[in-house]
Amino acid sequence: MVVIVMGVSGCGKTTIGKMLAESLALPYYDADAFHPEVNVQKMREGIPLDDLDREPWLNELARQLADWEKGSGAVLSCSALKEKYRGKFNARVNNIYWVVLQGSYEQIYSRLQARAGHYMKPGLLKSQFETLEVPAYGFHISVLDSPEEITAQIIRNMELTKKSSFGLIGLGVMGKSIALNIAEKHIALSVYNRAEAGEEKVVQHFLEENKQIENLQGYIELRSFVESLKKPRKILIMIKAGSALDEVIEQLSPFLAPGDILIDGGNSHYQDTEKRMEILAKKQIDFVGAGISGGEEGARTGPSIMPGCSREAYRHIAPVLEALAARDKQGASCCTHVGPGGSGHFVKMVHNGIEYAEMQLLADIFTVLAADYTYEEIAAIFEQWDRTELSSFLLQITATILRKKEGNRYLLDLILDSAGSKGTGSWSGIAALHFGQAATLMTTAVFARYISALKERRVQLSDQMKTKEIKSGKPEVGSLYHAYYFAKILNHQQGFALIKAVSDELQWHIDLGEIARIWTNGCIIKSAFMEKCQVIFGRCSDLFSEQEVLDTLKEFEPSVSEIVRLSIQKRMSVPVLFTALDYWFAITTRRSSAAVIQAQRDYFGAHTYQRTDKQSGMFFHTKWTEQ
Amino acid sequence: MVVIVMGVSGCGKTTIGKMLAESLALPYYDADAFHPEVNVQKMREGIPLDDLDREPWLNELARQLADWEKGSGAVLSCSALKEKYRGKFNARVNNIYWVVLQGSYEQIYSRLQARAGHYMKPGLLKSQFETLEVPAYGFHISVLDSPEEITAQIIRNMELTKKSSFGLIGLGVMGKSIALNIAEKHIALSVYNRAEAGEEKVVQHFLEENKQIENLQGYIELRSFVESLKKPRKILIMIKAGSALDEVIEQLSPFLAPGDILIDGGNSHYQDTEKRMEILAKKQIDFVGAGISGGEEGARTGPSIMPGCSREAYRHIAPVLEALAARDKQGASCCTHVGPGGSGHFVKMVHNGIEYAEMQLLADIFTVLAADYTYEEIAAIFEQWDRTELSSFLLQITATILRKKEGNRYLLDLILDSAGSKGTGSWSGIAALHFGQAATLMTTAVFARYISALKERRVQLSDQMKTKEIKSGKPEVGSLYHAYYFAKILNHQQGFALIKAVSDELQWHIDLGEIARIWTNGCIIKSAFMEKCQVIFGRCSDLFSEQEVLDTLKEFEPSVSEIVRLSIQKRMSVPVLFTALDYWFAITTRRSSAAVIQAQRDYFGAHTYQRTDKQSGMFFHTKWTEQ
Repeated sequence: MVVIVMGVSGCGKTTIGKMLAESLALPYYDADAFHPEVNVQKMREGIPLDDLDREPWLNELARQLADWEKGSGAVLSCSALKEKYRGKFNARVNNIYWVVLQGSYEQIYSRLQARAGHYMKPGLLKSQFETLEVPAYGFHISVLDSPEEITAQIIRNMELTKKSSFGLIGLGVMGKSIALNIAEKHIALSVYNRAEAGEEKVVQHFLEENKQIENLQGYIELRSFVESLKKPRKILIMIKAGSALDEVIEQLSPFLAPGDILIDGGNSHYQDTEKRMEILAKKQIDFVGAGISGGEEGARTGPSIMPGCSREAYRHIAPVLEALAARDKQGASCCTHVGPGGSGHFVKMVHNGIEYAEMQLLADIFTVLAADYTYEEIAAIFEQWDRTELSSFLLQITATILRKKEGNRYLLDLILDSAGSKGTGSWSGIAALHFGQAATLMTTAVFARYISALKERRVQLSDQMKTKEIKSGKPEVGSLYHAYYFAKILNHQQGFALIKAVSDELQWHIDLGEIARIWTNGCIIKSAFMEKCQVIFGRCSDLFSEQEVLDTLKEFEPSVSEIVRLSIQKRMSVPVLFTALDYWFAITTRRSSAAVIQAQRDYFGAHTYQRTDKQSGMFFHTKWTEQ
Repeated sequence: MVVIVMGVSGCGKTTIGKMLAESLALPYYDADAFHPEVNVQKMREGIPLDDLDREPWLNELARQLADWEKGSGAVLSCSALKEKYRGKFNARVNNIYWVVLQGSYEQIYSRLQARAGHYMKPGLLKSQFETLEVPAYGFHISVLDSPEEITAQIIRNMELTKKSSFGLIGLGVMGKSIALNIAEKHIALSVYNRAEAGEEKVVQHFLEENKQIENLQGYIELRSFVESLKKPRKILIMIKAGSALDEVIEQLSPFLAPGDILIDGGNSHYQDTEKRMEILAKKQIDFVGAGISGGEEGARTGPSIMPGCSREAYRHIAPVLEALAARDKQGASCCTHVGPGGSGHFVKMVHNGIEYAEMQLLADIFTVLAADYTYEEIAAIFEQWDRTELSSFLLQITATILRKKEGNRYLLDLILDSAGSKGTGSWSGIAALHFGQAATLMTTAVFARYISALKERRVQLSDQMKTKEIKSGKPEVGSLYHAYYFAKILNHQQGFALIKAVSDELQWHIDLGEIARIWTNGCIIKSAFMEKCQVIFGRCSDLFSEQEVLDTLKEFEPSVSEIVRLSIQKRMSVPVLFTALDYWFAITTRRSSAAVIQAQRDYFGAHTYQRTDKQSGMFFHTKWTEQ
C-alpha cells in the first residue's frame, strides 16, 4: 500500500506522514529528499522552481512509488500541488491512497510563523496557494485538528476504504471461476469458504494461486468475511442448492444489516427462492435468486445471468453482475433483471429444460446417423451444420466429443449409456404439468434419461428382441438437418411459452426478448437460433406468430416424417424427434380426438362438456345409456 | 319405534310404560287389555292361564305391534315371561326395544302388598317367578329406583343405541351414491351436508327421497351429526379436495374424541393427506386417505376403494368399506388396505394416470379409424374387441358414446374437442418426474389434453397447414387391435412400476397383486387385462418378467410400427401410440445414445461419467478440448 500525504508547505505533511508510517509500520519518505541538488540550491536561495525543474524529480518519485508498491508499501509526504504532477504518479501506480491536508492561507501562514529549520521561505506560501489544484479524489482532512487526531482519522478511513465491494461464498468449481472473473474486472472482492474437513485449505490455496490479483481478500470465518464488505453488502452464494444453502443463510444472518443483499447463484427451485425471500425480507435483507448458466468455462469468461429480485436490489448488484456476464453481439451484458420473486430461478430452470431437449435432440440425430456413418463423418456433418444458421455451442461440443479418442478408440464408445440428471430438468416438466403447458419435448428428454438409466433392464430386453438386422436405407443428411431445425424451433417455442404462461399467471412481467438476448451468449443453449429468437420475441410473444417460422416448419415437416418413419423401420428410439412431430401434428389439428375424451369423462364422471354448436362457457351433461 | 316394558306382575311395567310413552310422545298400551274375555275371567278367579289360553292373545299382540311399527310406534307393557312368547313378537317385528324390569321375589312382593285395584292375586307371584326366563337381550334395569329415574335411564340408553355405526359428510353426486350403497347394506348411517346457500334442503330432500331406508339419520349441524355416531366414530368425507376439506376437518375436530376415524374419500394429493394425518395424529384421531374409483355408477353399486392408513384404523373401517365396494370374480371385496400414510391416495392417483393414458389411447385409435370408418363401424369394431381379452369398461363406454345420436346427428360431433383435466393426471406425471420413473404414456396423455385445450391456436395453425388430402391406405383393424393391446400393456407396466418405485422408496410395502385385484372391478380402468395383471403381479413385480407378455409385445410391435407410420403419413396426432412405440424401442435398446448426453454433461459441467470398461460407481472426467 502506497500512501501520499499532500498539501502546501507548512500544512503538516511531514509530521502526519511520519506518524502514519509508524502506525502502519511502513517506511516513511519525504518527497523533497529526492530533489536533485540544483533544485535544493534554488529553494535555499528562495528561487521558485518551475515545472522544467520538477520534471526529473517527479519521474524519480514515480519510479520509487512503483517500487514501494511492489514491495511492502510506503508513506510519502509530497506537496503534489498540480494534477499533472499527481497524474505522473497515478499513471505509474495502480492504487495510491491520497491524503489531502487542507487549511486556509491564514491558517497555514500562522503555523509557518511558529516554525524553524525549514529551508522554504514563508514568502513562497502565497505562490503555493495560487498553484494548488485540490484533487477531487483522496481523503480530505483539515489541518486544525491535532496530528494524533488527524492520523487516527486517516487510519479509520483507510480501514473503511479497504473494504471489498463484493463478497462470494463457496469456492467450488463454479465459485472459483466466478471469483476470478469478478477480480479480473478490478472489483474488490472478499471470498469465503468453510474450513470443514477436506476444505481447510481451499481459501489459502485460492489466494496463493492468485497472488497477482489485487483487492482479493480470503476468509474462513463468516463474521470477518461479512465485515470486510462495504455496506450494503452484496454477497453471491455459490454452493449446492438445498439445505446447505439454508444453513449458510442462517449462519450469515446475525452479521447482516438491513439493506444487505444475498444472491443465490445456484440451481435452487424457484419456490424455495420465494420462501427464502419472504423469510429474509422480515430482516430487511434482499434476497436474489440468480440463475447462472455457462458451466465452468462460462463462469470464468462470462456466463449468462438471470437474477430475479426487487428493482432496488438489482440496482445495487447490476454493476458487478453485468460486468462479469458474457456480452451479446452488440456488446451488451448477458445479464438482465428478469423480474420479481423467483422469476430468475424459474427462467434458469426453463433454460435447463430447453437444454435437456436440445441435448436429447442431438442424441437422437446421432442415433439416426450412427447406423450409417462413422463418428468422424458425423462430426464433420455437425461441424458443417455449425457453419449454418443452426450454429450452437451444443452442436460444437458434440462434434468435439465425437472426435475425441483414447488411444485408438473413440472415448464415446467407452462411456456408459446411462444419463444422470439433477433437479432442473424434471422441475421444468413438473412446472409444465402444473401450469397446464404442453412442454412435451423437454419432458420427453427427461424421461429419456430415466430410461437410459435402466441399463440392465434394456440389455435384458434387447436380448429378447434380437431381430434380423434391418438395412432399410441411409438417412438423408439434408432431411436430418431439417428435422434438427424443426425440433429446435418447437423446443424453443414450448420453452418460451412455459415462461410466458407462468409470468402471466404470477404477474412477473418477464420480457421474453430480453431473456432470449441474455441467452445468446454465455449459456449452454447459446446459438444462432437464439439470436433469431431475440428478434422475434422482441416483437411478439410467440414463434408461431412469425410467418417465416411457420413456413420453415411446414417446409421441413416432410423431412421429419421421413426421418421418424425411417427410425421406426430401424427400431430406433428418437424420443425428441417423435415428440416434436406429434406435437406439430397435434397443434395443427383443427378437430382433435379430445371430443372422445370429453364424452368419456362425462359418461363416467358427469364432468360435462362444451358443444361446438353452443357458445363457449355453457356446459352440458348427457345420460349416455338412455335411449 | 316399538318399546316393550316387560317383567313379572308388580314390577312396575304400567307406571314405567306410561311415563316412557309420555316422554317419547308415543301411544301407550297395556298387553292385558288385549286378552280375550275368557282369560280376564280366569285371572279374576285366580285361575292361572296356560299357554293354550295365551295363544290368541299373543297373536293379537304381535299383529298390533307390527301395525304400530309401521305407524309412528308405541310403548307396550307386557309380562312376556317366556322366550317363546317374546319370540312371537320378535318374529313379526324388526326392531323392538326391550326394557326388562328386574327385582327379587322379596322386592316385588313387598311392592305388591302395598298395592290395590289390581285383579291379579299376590299368590300368583310365586308362579310368575318360576315361569320367568330373563332375556339375554334388551335393556335391563332394577325396580328399586324411582319410576322417574328408571324412565330417564331407559331414554338415555335408547339415545345411545340409536347411534349410527357410520357417518358420511357431503351429499354431492358421489356422496349420495355412496350413502345409498351403505344404507343398502343395513348399516346404520348418519349423513351430513352443510346448509349453506343453495344447499339448504340437500339433507331434507335426501331423507324424503329415501324414506324406505331404515337407520338413516340426516343432519345439517356438525355437532349433532358427530354425536349421532357410535364411538369410535367413523366418518367418510366426500367433498371437494383442498381447502374445503381442511375447513370441514377444522369444524369437525372440536367434536371428535381420541380414537375417532376420518376418511377422506376425495381425490386429495397424497402429500396433503400425509400432512393431515400428522396434524390429526396429535389429537389421536386417525386419518384415512381413501381413493375411490368408479364414478357415480360405481359409488352406487360398488366402487374400487384404496384406503391408506394405519392397520388399526383399517380394522375399524374395513367392515363398512369392504361391504360397500365392488366384488372381484371370486367374490372378494375390491377394497384392500393399500398401506400406511398417503399410499391410498397415491395409488388412486396412479390409477387415474393409467386412466388418462387408456382414454387417450382409445382417442388415438379412434383418430386412426375415423379417417376410414363410420362411427357405427368403429363402435362395432370396439364391441367386437370387447368380446376378446381386451374387454374393458372404457372400451364399452366408448362404443356407446360413438353410437349416441341427437336427432340425426352423432352427439360426438357436437362436443367441443377441448379436454379438461383435474389434478390427478398431472400429479401422476409430476410424481413420475420427481421419482425418476419414465411414466411416459400417462404424461403424454395429460399433455395431449393441454394441447387439445389450445383450440383456437390449433384452428389457426391448421389453416396454415392446408395440404392436399392424403389417402394412403386404410388401417388394418387387426393391426390396430395389436397396437391397442401393445400400448395397454406398456401403460400398465409403467403405472405399476411407478407405484412400486414409490412404495419401495417410502417403505409402503404395497402389494401390487392386491392393487391389480381391487382394480378388476368397480373402477374406471377395470378390464379383462387387469385380471391378467392380478395374476402376474401375484407372482412378480413386473409385466416384463412374464415371457408371455414379452412375446405379445414382440409379436405386435410390427403392427404398432405400421399404424404409427401410417398415421405419420396421414398427419395424425396419436401421442400415446407414438410414445408407447418409442418407449418400447428405448427400453429394448442395448446401447443407447445416452453416452452422448453424458459426454455433453461432462464437457460443459464437469458432471463426470461412468465407463463401460470400468466397474460401476467409478466416475471419470475428461478435458475434452485437450489434445
